[in-house]
Amino acid sequence: MDSTPARTHASLDSFVDRYAARTAGMTASEIRALFAVASRPEVVSLAGGMPNISGLPLDVVGGAINQLVLEHGPVAMQYGSGQGVPELREQITEVMRLEGIEAHPDDVVVTVGSQQAVDLVTRIFCDPGDVVICEAPSYVGALGVFRAYQAEVVHAEMDAHGLVPEALEQAIAAVKRAGRTIKFLYTIPNFHNPAGVTMSAERRQRVLEICRREGVLVLEDNPYGLLGFDREPLRAMRADEADNVIYLGSFSKTFAPGFRVGWALAPHPVREKLVLAQESATLCPPQFSQMAVSAYLATHDWQGQIKQFREMYRERRDAMVGALEDLMPAGCSWNVPDGGFYVWLTLPPGIDAKAMLPRAVTARVAYVPGTAFFADGYGSGAMRLSFCYPTAERIREGVRRLAGVLEDEIELRATFGASLDRDDVDRGLPPGYDAPGTDVN
Amino acid sequence: MDSTPARTHASLDSFVDRYAARTAGMTASEIRALFAVASRPEVVSLAGGMPNISGLPLDVVGGAINQLVLEHGPVAMQYGSGQGVPELREQITEVMRLEGIEAHPDDVVVTVGSQQAVDLVTRIFCDPGDVVICEAPSYVGALGVFRAYQAEVVHAEMDAHGLVPEALEQAIAAVKRAGRTIKFLYTIPNFHNPAGVTMSAERRQRVLEICRREGVLVLEDNPYGLLGFDREPLRAMRADEADNVIYLGSFSKTFAPGFRVGWALAPHPVREKLVLAQESATLCPPQFSQMAVSAYLATHDWQGQIKQFREMYRERRDAMVGALEDLMPAGCSWNVPDGGFYVWLTLPPGIDAKAMLPRAVTARVAYVPGTAFFADGYGSGAMRLSFCYPTAERIREGVRRLAGVLEDEIELRATFGASLDRDDVDRGLPPGYDAPGTDVN
Repeated sequence: MDSTPARTHASLDSFVDRYAARTAGMTASEIRALFAVASRPEVVSLAGGMPNISGLPLDVVGGAINQLVLEHGPVAMQYGSGQGVPELREQITEVMRLEGIEAHPDDVVVTVGSQQAVDLVTRIFCDPGDVVICEAPSYVGALGVFRAYQAEVVHAEMDAHGLVPEALEQAIAAVKRAGRTIKFLYTIPNFHNPAGVTMSAERRQRVLEICRREGVLVLEDNPYGLLGFDREPLRAMRADEADNVIYLGSFSKTFAPGFRVGWALAPHPVREKLVLAQESATLCPPQFSQMAVSAYLATHDWQGQIKQFREMYRERRDAMVGALEDLMPAGCSWNVPDGGFYVWLTLPPGIDAKAMLPRAVTARVAYVPGTAFFADGYGSGAMRLSFCYPTAERIREGVRRLAGVLEDEIELRATFGASLDRDDVDRGLPPGYDAPGTDVN
Repeated sequence: MDSTPARTHASLDSFVDRYAARTAGMTASEIRALFAVASRPEVVSLAGGMPNISGLPLDVVGGAINQLVLEHGPVAMQYGSGQGVPELREQITEVMRLEGIEAHPDDVVVTVGSQQAVDLVTRIFCDPGDVVICEAPSYVGALGVFRAYQAEVVHAEMDAHGLVPEALEQAIAAVKRAGRTIKFLYTIPNFHNPAGVTMSAERRQRVLEICRREGVLVLEDNPYGLLGFDREPLRAMRADEADNVIYLGSFSKTFAPGFRVGWALAPHPVREKLVLAQESATLCPPQFSQMAVSAYLATHDWQGQIKQFREMYRERRDAMVGALEDLMPAGCSWNVPDGGFYVWLTLPPGIDAKAMLPRAVTARVAYVPGTAFFADGYGSGAMRLSFCYPTAERIREGVRRLAGVLEDEIELRATFGASLDRDDVDRGLPPGYDAPGTDVN
């Protein structure tokens, strides 16, 4: 007999029947597949969420870390506490005070980026089949975590002022009617990834009130809060509600992501569980990274540095919005974010952002299709454009290329009409969804 | 009405009914509770597993990292690949070559210490109720991970030559007869934590052969492999079996734990799942830590440094074993480890290591009771003594104090006899277990 079939079979995954059920939910994200192509230098990537850290003073950082090794090396290079370095947790409370939070360092747990905080919170709360309520759209990395823990995501719509309270109430009621258990609301109140909108102060109070009444814990994810362009930061939701909010913060955008230092601030009993989960996951978060961040905060004008970052990102936001206004064909709409990294672009009816992506990459521009930010297949009529990493000039060039690709698509539709329609194309928004910021476009 | 009861109630965990089922398995380990008392300077801690890194050249490390920031700061402080830094993965293959492993950097996944590798492997393989076979005793941190994923641990006995092949076969057969699914064998072949024994070359082949035949994946955890005292490292199990072994390594003991850099080497399809799990857990392992370790390996005589570590630990092993021989009362037995950090001490019949611990700490010496290293309640008649962190002089003093406490216990038993017997005291070994190394004592 020919042995070729056996060989072919051997090249497949021989472990396929042995993985845990949860592993079926671990799939390569659309962003991840994109990174490979978008990282070619000729492509303008409006896809990634990498901060631009070129403004950091390398001599200051290098000097502080060298000093750290010389003076505290045996501690910095040793195992540490599962909860994190006490001095850093003290400094974290100072960072959070900028958004109105009064907290004790004892209720802070340091994590390997705030991504790990999402992972640990989900780990301690979610059994398979439990429901997490998320904004529509929501952060792709969080959706991946919820899927990996076999939790089900139910989206609630946003508008230009953030999560819509009535939509949240409806979602909670629908889940409860179905006899399902809601474990928490996952929300990004400031400069939303990917929607670019900020939840208004009044909305925050209403959302907190609804969640308290309905017994739904709030997971407030706030990596961008200090990166507002036009005003002082809004009060964090956690500032007004300590008992029912887990707050997540990060140094990835206000300092640098390569240290992977984020944190969770949690009600005391939850904090205890998070520490146990952290010990099981890593024994302790990287001591060296934590002490490096702590040394940076202690020796550098970190608030001045954040101010510089804000000005740099504002300039890039202006470049992107200006280019969109100048170049986008009719039928597109977008919001003008007042902070953070992202613009959410809604396409003319019938244009599928995911189907168009290969043509865009051929035209040397990349973005993330809106579908990545929904757990339920919505979003094909939208995309996320990021203005954080490329220069203003490159952003303008990227938008120019994208406009060209879109014009071709629109022309194709005008020529061939509805015969191009696909059932799975939608405006990127669930029924009743009001495009974020269309009123400010 | 008096409001006191309500206040008391309010101090309890209001989230208690909302946690995931797995969270019930997350409990503070006996080691963890110990650290608080054992860290007082007057206590000689023979409990912890912290490496002694005081021999590291701080000027070399600090200089290399300063150089890293100045020359590659914008990359080192940025997000990186979920799989880890390519150059470091290349260097990791060189480290593994010292134990006979030929591997491609593409099959290496960097993790936040090898603890996270245990976590990610368990995450992708274990559904609740799945069985993991472990040596008896086994590493407390791995047992905690298996419990957190609701996997069931079945122990298989060891002797002075490591895991007993017949015991492994019996354990596999018993689990299969019960209709349960075995996901993998977790083994520490070199300088076992906590048992201190090394699996012989012949045993390794038999264990690999049994696992291959029975369709049981092998998880080879090898943090101490390069820290042998008396000979060159044995060939890793992975060196002779690439398809059915996931190998875990770490820089925590050969360089420093504070960077939290470990790794998994896995068959290609498993490697893909591990990368997806890593992306979900942390987006990427700390880029800065990885590049710092890489710079250390590139600029320092790291093999010479390991040789120094080996000599230092050998001296401490000699101090501990010498003190045990000089001071321990009759009826105690222990092994003489030829590498690593640990001695396993078996107590005279009727002495309970856990019950004795408060008296030991009062006498200013700490250890880890054997029960921490069993998932099934065994081990109360044994303890783990570590010789890695205290100086030789302190080790001797610690053993002297421990011997005093033990003599008091033995005298108490001689006076009051069997009336002190407790049902839950055992020799620290499951039925049929041959104390590791009792023949070499």
